[in-house]
Amino acid sequence: MTFPAIGISLGDPGGIGPEVVLKALDPLSLLPKARFVVFGDRRVWDAERAALGLRLEAPIPIGDTVPPAPGLYFNNIGAVPGDIVRGRACEENGESSFMAFEKAIGLAGKGVLDAVVTAPISKTSWRLADLPWRGHTEYLDSLFPGAIMAFWSERLKVALLSHHIPLKEALGRVRKDVLLDFFRALHRSLAAVRSGVDELLVAGINPHAGEDGLLGAEETNEIRPAVEEAAREGIPVGGPFPADTVFLKVLDHPDKMVVAMSHDQGLIGFKLVAFATGVNTTLGMPFVRTSPDHGTAFDIAGKGIADPRSMLEALRLAVRLTAS
Amino acid sequence: MTFPAIGISLGDPGGIGPEVVLKALDPLSLLPKARFVVFGDRRVWDAERAALGLRLEAPIPIGDTVPPAPGLYFNNIGAVPGDIVRGRACEENGESSFMAFEKAIGLAGKGVLDAVVTAPISKTSWRLADLPWRGHTEYLDSLFPGAIMAFWSERLKVALLSHHIPLKEALGRVRKDVLLDFFRALHRSLAAVRSGVDELLVAGINPHAGEDGLLGAEETNEIRPAVEEAAREGIPVGGPFPADTVFLKVLDHPDKMVVAMSHDQGLIGFKLVAFATGVNTTLGMPFVRTSPDHGTAFDIAGKGIADPRSMLEALRLAVRLTAS
Repeated sequence: MTFPAIGISLGDPGGIGPEVVLKALDPLSLLPKARFVVFGDRRVWDAERAALGLRLEAPIPIGDTVPPAPGLYFNNIGAVPGDIVRGRACEENGESSFMAFEKAIGLAGKGVLDAVVTAPISKTSWRLADLPWRGHTEYLDSLFPGAIMAFWSERLKVALLSHHIPLKEALGRVRKDVLLDFFRALHRSLAAVRSGVDELLVAGINPHAGEDGLLGAEETNEIRPAVEEAAREGIPVGGPFPADTVFLKVLDHPDKMVVAMSHDQGLIGFKLVAFATGVNTTLGMPFVRTSPDHGTAFDIAGKGIADPRSMLEALRLAVRLTAS
Repeated sequence: MTFPAIGISLGDPGGIGPEVVLKALDPLSLLPKARFVVFGDRRVWDAERAALGLRLEAPIPIGDTVPPAPGLYFNNIGAVPGDIVRGRACEENGESSFMAFEKAIGLAGKGVLDAVVTAPISKTSWRLADLPWRGHTEYLDSLFPGAIMAFWSERLKVALLSHHIPLKEALGRVRKDVLLDFFRALHRSLAAVRSGVDELLVAGINPHAGEDGLLGAEETNEIRPAVEEAAREGIPVGGPFPADTVFLKVLDHPDKMVVAMSHDQGLIGFKLVAFATGVNTTLGMPFVRTSPDHGTAFDIAGKGIADPRSMLEALRLAVRLTAS
């Protein structure tokens, strides 16, 4: 039996990333068996473990290969010079969090890791460190142009046609050719992992999904033709459905997923249903990436009160999607 | 003490309108004291009452004035010729449901009624009857151009800047002058009734509410200036907030309301939270209009299984908003 190798990047050392990672891994016995490899500054890990008073076993230091046995490993990378700054963005933490993330993604791209779980970075820290990417998503987009942002919870799953672009640009992407490529990539990607999803429900963009063209033409001219062509290719996709009820059709059906035409269309529904336990997932790459659905939360960093549930779900999902 | 006069239009005789009205009124003692006046074909009422086996008291027939005592009254209007068609759209039912609705709205406009609760009509029946309005909303828009569509539930309240227009047109209305007029009309209207709402939270349209202009300009150029000017006028309004979390800020705060920039932006959130008990509310008119958040449901008409909860909430809200 091969145990999936799950990379975990510690995130910004000044935020709640290290805290939620440690809490989610403690005790390891509550997680499905896997080879968990933490990427980050070992000093940050040890300080956080001491501060939280956890009895979590010390991870085994490793280099760029992962031993076959399940357990907890550490790839020490991104050492922060001097004292660790907590509770605010700074250049050093931007550097550190990027190095850990870049290393994990690099090894995943080479097939050493099956999935990478990313704790939250600070976009401000990355900017202070002069990094050209706004955040994780933009870095992944630059390496894997077909990367798909999806959101995952027990009750609801949503994939986004586009994410961090203005709504008017997002609407410009609602075109038959773009949609067809997206349906194909999403379907391929869901089939490659143990997603359990076997039906895609596509949301319209106009009220009542355009009501046969009375309230907008995109459904008739772009979305429906793309859905029909994809269905002819054997992709299990239906719609366009009115966006205000498609979430209800998918809710509590683990084998169904909403395809949303824009960032907020998908996330209004998702966050209402799964705020504390939702997992941000990136598909369409040679490996899976998951991350908790929250940020660095600088205001509560170092207080020991961060909620690890979303990180725990991100770890569990990474294992579930990649276990053979 | 004056009891509010609440008109109730029976809706399409072939749908579940009459059934949910009768079920919601039975027994009258469970509703707050008011003068309920049903508008519709009395024959439809009597047939439905017999079919459901209800013991609800027979309503008192009245004309165009409403007696001062609380109770149940009937304004017999919109007689359907011949047998009543159930379970599908037809011209006769379009005529009947329009006449009842038109009569109730006319009396409300004259101040005879404080509110009108509308059971669902069939847009197809209206079209078959050659009516020039798609439905209730378009008729009200034609009489009261400032009418505001809002959605009301215990847990969440949402007002829509626009409703039945294509999304691209809706985005064209996200302009400072339009927004400012809307905030003023909504505030005036909420203050005129016993709404309990004293804070408006405005949603942005771009991801992360534009993230300071990085992901779209509408928040910076249009929404924020309108919010700031309205706030200077004393209107309790804030934002723009990211649309994917503004619903969480308002959820379970009965004194707050989301202002959504488009139909689906508001209704994705609302329907997830309040599907069976949500009330569609029209504000910005000289009277209040409420209606259940469902349609004629022709497929289950006449089976006695329609859920009256949304109609019940629509009746209760109409009384609560207008009781003095």
